[in-house]
Amino acid sequence: MARNNFDAIKKKALRLHKKAGGKFAIMSKVPLRGPEDLKLVYTPGVGAVSSFVASHKGSEWEYTMKGNSVLVVSDGSAVLGLGNIGPYGALPVMEGKCLLFKKFANIDAVPLVLATQDTEAIIATVKAVSPAFGGINLEDISAPRCFEIEARLKRELDIPVMHDDQHGTAIIVLAGLLNALKVVKKKLKNSKIIISGAGAAGTAIAKILCLAGAKNIVVLDSKGVIWRGRPNLNPAKRELARITNPKNMKGGLADAMRGADVFIGVSGPNIVTEGMVRSMERNAIVFALANPIPEIMPDAAKRGGAKIIATGRSDFPNQLNNSQVFPGVFRGALDHRVRAITDTMKLKAARAIAALVPRPTATNIVPDMFDKRLVRTVAAVIR
Amino acid sequence: MARNNFDAIKKKALRLHKKAGGKFAIMSKVPLRGPEDLKLVYTPGVGAVSSFVASHKGSEWEYTMKGNSVLVVSDGSAVLGLGNIGPYGALPVMEGKCLLFKKFANIDAVPLVLATQDTEAIIATVKAVSPAFGGINLEDISAPRCFEIEARLKRELDIPVMHDDQHGTAIIVLAGLLNALKVVKKKLKNSKIIISGAGAAGTAIAKILCLAGAKNIVVLDSKGVIWRGRPNLNPAKRELARITNPKNMKGGLADAMRGADVFIGVSGPNIVTEGMVRSMERNAIVFALANPIPEIMPDAAKRGGAKIIATGRSDFPNQLNNSQVFPGVFRGALDHRVRAITDTMKLKAARAIAALVPRPTATNIVPDMFDKRLVRTVAAVIR
Repeated sequence: MARNNFDAIKKKALRLHKKAGGKFAIMSKVPLRGPEDLKLVYTPGVGAVSSFVASHKGSEWEYTMKGNSVLVVSDGSAVLGLGNIGPYGALPVMEGKCLLFKKFANIDAVPLVLATQDTEAIIATVKAVSPAFGGINLEDISAPRCFEIEARLKRELDIPVMHDDQHGTAIIVLAGLLNALKVVKKKLKNSKIIISGAGAAGTAIAKILCLAGAKNIVVLDSKGVIWRGRPNLNPAKRELARITNPKNMKGGLADAMRGADVFIGVSGPNIVTEGMVRSMERNAIVFALANPIPEIMPDAAKRGGAKIIATGRSDFPNQLNNSQVFPGVFRGALDHRVRAITDTMKLKAARAIAALVPRPTATNIVPDMFDKRLVRTVAAVIR
Repeated sequence: MARNNFDAIKKKALRLHKKAGGKFAIMSKVPLRGPEDLKLVYTPGVGAVSSFVASHKGSEWEYTMKGNSVLVVSDGSAVLGLGNIGPYGALPVMEGKCLLFKKFANIDAVPLVLATQDTEAIIATVKAVSPAFGGINLEDISAPRCFEIEARLKRELDIPVMHDDQHGTAIIVLAGLLNALKVVKKKLKNSKIIISGAGAAGTAIAKILCLAGAKNIVVLDSKGVIWRGRPNLNPAKRELARITNPKNMKGGLADAMRGADVFIGVSGPNIVTEGMVRSMERNAIVFALANPIPEIMPDAAKRGGAKIIATGRSDFPNQLNNSQVFPGVFRGALDHRVRAITDTMKLKAARAIAALVPRPTATNIVPDMFDKRLVRTVAAVIR
């Protein structure tokens, strides 16, 4: 995507949003042509539905929107690569997310952006508004607050709650990595894996890779490698130090990448050089997922000798994007009325996505997000 | 509506809601056919919209859903005539309300039912979730909590907040009464008006009638007439005692109705007898609005000598229902970006609705809710 092409997209996007007045609209699932229909969807007929639902526990899943609805919530504290731009800035993204829910999984998702970034207030608010929804999708909430918010809501609500920036991303990265390793004939447990970025995505990726059997992961934040004993680690990073970096190495990105089999970037643009890729093991795998500008451009990674390259973008091969995951996860969660998305489900989802490409190649490790099998396949294992 | 007809409606309504899985669905206002569209509504294009909205105050009204969206909120504490049946019981009504918003005013309204009935928690929650919406419609919240909740939210938010059970009802009742009085050639300021019911609707009706010039209103709750000095009045009823009942009369409904020109019931079924209507002044006006069973059935009121009879139901002449009002109020509020619905606007709305029937008759005092002029006419004065 050349610079001027990107500018053209931005311009077109602004024009489109202004013309439409946002992207979100509601519609009726039942006819409403005149007084006869009104009697059924409104008073007096609706009173019978209200009484029934109020007195039959669980019937709200069948008689109201709840059974097919997901709430998409953000406080606007970590929007795309734009940072803490607040609720109004987050809203266009949340609306977009809701359209993807509809398009890919026929789920009715409602965007909600919050006028608070206080952890306790967010938890209280989401709990209070939860009854109408069969699932909660948290989105673009900054780390480490997002961990506490998700954990508490999972504990305190009986519907599935998923912070997509963590788990949607982690699932698709694992799926891509399983197939990439297959192509280069390496094993996950023997691979040295570097993760650049210890926010929501990086943390969740590290955890799911551990669960899947990876033994040698090193995670870096903006201050370099995360190691046991590094001063001023917050609790989330202390846990990362505990479960990764078995040799407790220190240093910067260049040090960490030397001899690595896999680089996974969920951090910022242009931080990896061709030379760093050259210092990796043979048949290196480079997932440079920062959006829209990756950690290293694919052509540079290729010149550095990378065998398999993935980005978060649709204009290069091997796009890894949580849009390949979240519609199926919530479709399955609603269809099977699961109360929580478990680690086992996440692993199964990653493996199911990987299995959709039985003969992966260097430029085809996962199905693209418009592949209709994705939702069905992921939904089948979320149960 | 005969009993068995009503049972048939209930059965049909239950079947319809179960088959559809609720009534609420979302749709996209922009095309989403493939990767080219996705670039505009989602990353990377949407990032340009997010940045723009975050840095241009007020642009959220044009570039996001906010400019055409209303939040419909209930805590399920006073649902229809069903009482405190909780959030799930309220949800079918809120979904129905959202469909009416769409049908009559092309507004995208989102239903939200709350898992709390605590006044402070409701206020905090609605404030927290308000950014995506251009207006807040409170619904089916019990009195007197509804007064505090509405007043506080009006004060603390810069978008219009309206408790429809209060003001939607009050506006349509005033509209109907203005035309009914025209038919019987009486004046509002000289009429003795009885209001049965001192909840959300009754209180708001009393207030708007005072504003419109009524001088002799008597309000009753379940304990009888509300008078200055009656023990244990809550603050809302103390205010009613102050602004109504000029002679500070006491007694029950039969006492109050003797010699009255107007009876307005927003209370419960079958509490008014033919004899009570007979005790009213000549050319009595009887608005028996309890739903679905009115305070007195129209045929009985007629036998008692009532000249003009209105109900809340669509199967009798002169239906008075807040659905005739709220779509236009919020259409106007969004179109003119008003920050609050004022008393002046409410009076204007009532008069504008009344003016739509220039030659009212005993069986035609207001337009029915499918009259397309209603939304346009009301919207024009909410500015």
